[in-house]
Amino acid sequence: MRIAVDVMGGDHGCGVVIEGVKRALEADSKISALYLVGKQEDIHAAMQVSGLVDKRVHIVHSTEVMTMEDKPTVALRKKKDSSIAKAVDLVAEGKADAVISLGNTGGILTFATFKLRPLPGVERAGIATVIPAPDNEFVLLDSGANIECKPLHLAQYAVMGSVYSREILRYKNPRVGLLCNGTEEGKGNELTKEAYRLCKQLDLNFVGNVEGHDLFANKVDVVVCDGFVGNIVLKTCESLAVGIFAMLKRELVRNPKRQLGAYLAQNAFRVIKRRMDPEIYGGAPLLGLNGIVMKAHGSAKEKSIMNAIRITTETVQNRINKTIVEEIQRANERLAATKSEE
Amino acid sequence: MRIAVDVMGGDHGCGVVIEGVKRALEADSKISALYLVGKQEDIHAAMQVSGLVDKRVHIVHSTEVMTMEDKPTVALRKKKDSSIAKAVDLVAEGKADAVISLGNTGGILTFATFKLRPLPGVERAGIATVIPAPDNEFVLLDSGANIECKPLHLAQYAVMGSVYSREILRYKNPRVGLLCNGTEEGKGNELTKEAYRLCKQLDLNFVGNVEGHDLFANKVDVVVCDGFVGNIVLKTCESLAVGIFAMLKRELVRNPKRQLGAYLAQNAFRVIKRRMDPEIYGGAPLLGLNGIVMKAHGSAKEKSIMNAIRITTETVQNRINKTIVEEIQRANERLAATKSEE
Repeated sequence: MRIAVDVMGGDHGCGVVIEGVKRALEADSKISALYLVGKQEDIHAAMQVSGLVDKRVHIVHSTEVMTMEDKPTVALRKKKDSSIAKAVDLVAEGKADAVISLGNTGGILTFATFKLRPLPGVERAGIATVIPAPDNEFVLLDSGANIECKPLHLAQYAVMGSVYSREILRYKNPRVGLLCNGTEEGKGNELTKEAYRLCKQLDLNFVGNVEGHDLFANKVDVVVCDGFVGNIVLKTCESLAVGIFAMLKRELVRNPKRQLGAYLAQNAFRVIKRRMDPEIYGGAPLLGLNGIVMKAHGSAKEKSIMNAIRITTETVQNRINKTIVEEIQRANERLAATKSEE
Repeated sequence: MRIAVDVMGGDHGCGVVIEGVKRALEADSKISALYLVGKQEDIHAAMQVSGLVDKRVHIVHSTEVMTMEDKPTVALRKKKDSSIAKAVDLVAEGKADAVISLGNTGGILTFATFKLRPLPGVERAGIATVIPAPDNEFVLLDSGANIECKPLHLAQYAVMGSVYSREILRYKNPRVGLLCNGTEEGKGNELTKEAYRLCKQLDLNFVGNVEGHDLFANKVDVVVCDGFVGNIVLKTCESLAVGIFAMLKRELVRNPKRQLGAYLAQNAFRVIKRRMDPEIYGGAPLLGLNGIVMKAHGSAKEKSIMNAIRITTETVQNRINKTIVEEIQRANERLAATKSEE
């Protein structure tokens, strides 16, 4: 298996990325080639620091970096030698099976959509983020790729999210729900009402509308929404979790009695921190593209990068795109059939 | 001051409502009349249980109850003798200064909009929910009234939310932000992009787009969004907070050492629980109507009801609707002026 890693564009520089790559290579013998894409001199320096020497590593030099400030559509024309462009090229040319990037989400999406194209039958790619809940993990998609969605896009996200939950997270019959302002069938905006009608026709374990209260209550395994809502929900959850733990920390150090209590109970906090850790998955795939594309957190560090590579190899191995193509085709046929009956 | 309380429609029956009313009456001498609206026999029974004897209490009998299953528009025609209808009537007829209900949000909104009408210049009412964050409290509106918003609705929510934050929460110069999938000016969907353009023209402390990451990071005091997004965000936050505390509890009782730790640190947990307690405010106002309408949580108990009544009396006292009318008029004039210049 051959993986391309865009080592530029992360918040902590390319050193942590290469450290994560080193760990992933040590852990996974299935990786036959690993392309480090970025500024050659930076990569060489970081490899020396981390002591990464591995015959599977190939350096692909790029002169430019897509920054957070770059407009994706402009960068597509102007930054043809950016690390993300060249990393995606490796997949497009068949030299790599998957690409991982920490950079600008819009940029990755734009380059990947342009160079790889959507899978047959898929209208739009979506980002599938795995979110840990107390008693399950749910996939939220789209979590930020497609801001202005059509009902069919949501129905296709339902299909792709279901495949991802089944094949990668190992949920046997994932419960798929449409994120809404209430659970009753009549609830929702125009977009979700029509998406509801489409999803009901598909061969899914569709549980209907789900509301915010259901997300962390083990009621749904795949949460479908447009990228505007999904991005807000994802970031709000991250912000609230950070806020609660910050408050907790502040209160727990306020006096010696509480400090002792916190010390004795520290393993409880550790378990929760580990459970809620966004680094467990490290990356969120852009589902629906003709190639495996993984978006890692901009703030990802070694462990997170290693995990992103692990998830990426699992995704390649499971041939998830083959399954997506089959199930999207079946879904499209079914929707076309009901439409012609109407 | 005269308050009408729809005592039906809460999850825990009218007993807890009347208990909360009793406490509020004991605490607040400014209340000159309190109407209990609902089934007379239930009210009498609950008053006996709670020992509520107060000359300010008046019972208004209603034969019907609007349930969670009732469709608001149908109920408006068919349940004319429901407790929410009669409670709102008291405000419409000038017999009460404000109404509080625990019932179906859509129902309250529909009856209140029909019977009270929007304030002059206001296009749509919105629900303003106060959410506690580690270092501030922010108003989220609309949190569920107006599912299909237009840009002008959002701009008016920005104005009304700013007034509420200033007059009731005592923020001197509340920071107003548009909830979005990123902070850059170009981000957003069609609705928020146009709302951004409108908000920029208004006399507000407008901080531009805010994203989920900003909500609990003390970056914004008034978070403006459509009711679909707001409802999802509100319920997601509630669900996640409950989930985190449930996990914490589960981990803290797992062995005696942790249990001892939790015991020693219990005050820290109490502080946070109190801080995050949705019952502190007890109710969220429907801003923009010609009358004060407070929606209390369906699951509200005594303390929550008491707090909802307290917030309601403060809202009436501050003559918030007078300020809203003035500021909305100024905003509308300003938007009209720029429009004619274009």
